[in-house]
Amino acid sequence: MAIYEPVYPHDAWPEQFTFSPAVRVGNFVFLSGTTATDDQGHIVGPGDIVLQTRQIFHKFARILQRVGGGLANIIETTEFVLSLDDYKKTAQVRRELLKGPPWPAATGIVVSGLIRKDALIEIKGIAALE
Amino acid sequence: MAIYEPVYPHDAWPEQFTFSPAVRVGNFVFLSGTTATDDQGHIVGPGDIVLQTRQIFHKFARILQRVGGGLANIIETTEFVLSLDDYKKTAQVRRELLKGPPWPAATGIVVSGLIRKDALIEIKGIAALE
Amino acid sequence: MAIYEPVYPHDAWPEQFTFSPAVRVGNFVFLSGTTATDDQGHIVGPGDIVLQTRQIFHKFARILQRVGGGLANIIETTEFVLSLDDYKKTAQVRRELLKGPPWPAATGIVVSGLIRKDALIEIKGIAALE
Repeated sequence: MAIYEPVYPHDAWPEQFTFSPAVRVGNFVFLSGTTATDDQGHIVGPGDIVLQTRQIFHKFARILQRVGGGLANIIETTEFVLSLDDYKKTAQVRRELLKGPPWPAATGIVVSGLIRKDALIEIKGIAALE
Repeated sequence: MAIYEPVYPHDAWPEQFTFSPAVRVGNFVFLSGTTATDDQGHIVGPGDIVLQTRQIFHKFARILQRVGGGLANIIETTEFVLSLDDYKKTAQVRRELLKGPPWPAATGIVVSGLIRKDALIEIKGIAALE
Repeated sequence: MAIYEPVYPHDAWPEQFTFSPAVRVGNFVFLSGTTATDDQGHIVGPGDIVLQTRQIFHKFARILQRVGGGLANIIETTEFVLSLDDYKKTAQVRRELLKGPPWPAATGIVVSGLIRKDALIEIKGIAALE
């Protein structure tokens, strides 16, 4: 038996990737660092960190639905951004989609680069299922 | 029933925040990325990474006391700093307050920016309760 | 009884360090941010991110063997790199050593600095034991 179960947002996860978008271990789900790509690999909302943040949480929702959960199961996020410009505006996405209180724990950090071209923000996280 | 329980250092956590300073899930406590602010939101020890580190661990202590624990419950820290200047001196704070061995796991990274003005260091972590 | 058990790759962990290379809590193992140093503290593969990545996973393997596991127990990695040059080539190390699928969750971020001189990459992670 595998130690963990990979969780995919859809059935076409590229075979050449050496990571899973999320893995489940017991009741915990570890969400990989995720950028605002769509199913074709293009960034949704180039130049717009609010749109990108919304797309990332939509992707998390899709992943969490596959294991019977949703965004309310997210207990912790770490956000890596390229700049603080408009970063505060992403709080509205958290209000819209996470619908706290309660709110997850969170960390936000400005980094020098993200792997995905045109990404302004990348978020990783942990969710807990009931 | 909520999946997780938010944990606050005191009873005046601002309503507009879209994150909790910490959340408890089972016996784990996830500590949000924390800077050396005081209860009024001012950085303690501007320009002094050792004082800032001490303040952050004091804040963690206060949070962990709310769930019956303390700094000895911290199992992992990730430290984000703006520069390595004087960073080694923060080890004395760990000795003073964490009182190992045993010591938690730890990661330290130099980043381009922190959200909080005047913060030289931000620490996130995980604690485990008995 | 301690909340967590420190896990060492060998019996000569320096006493002055204020962190453990890994800690075990229940079935989880939290791996500290690790660079490609050898037992003498020298970077293996200066200037070569692929060699450095392999050395880091060898160190993780050694740690995980001490608690009855191995690299297949790694459920999540966060990789901090100084540049994206040759970063894609490190996927071959994951294929060689992690032998997925399934693959762990993963995050990769470009940062401004690492504490260890000559390190091009630092990896932290979480493993789960059976």
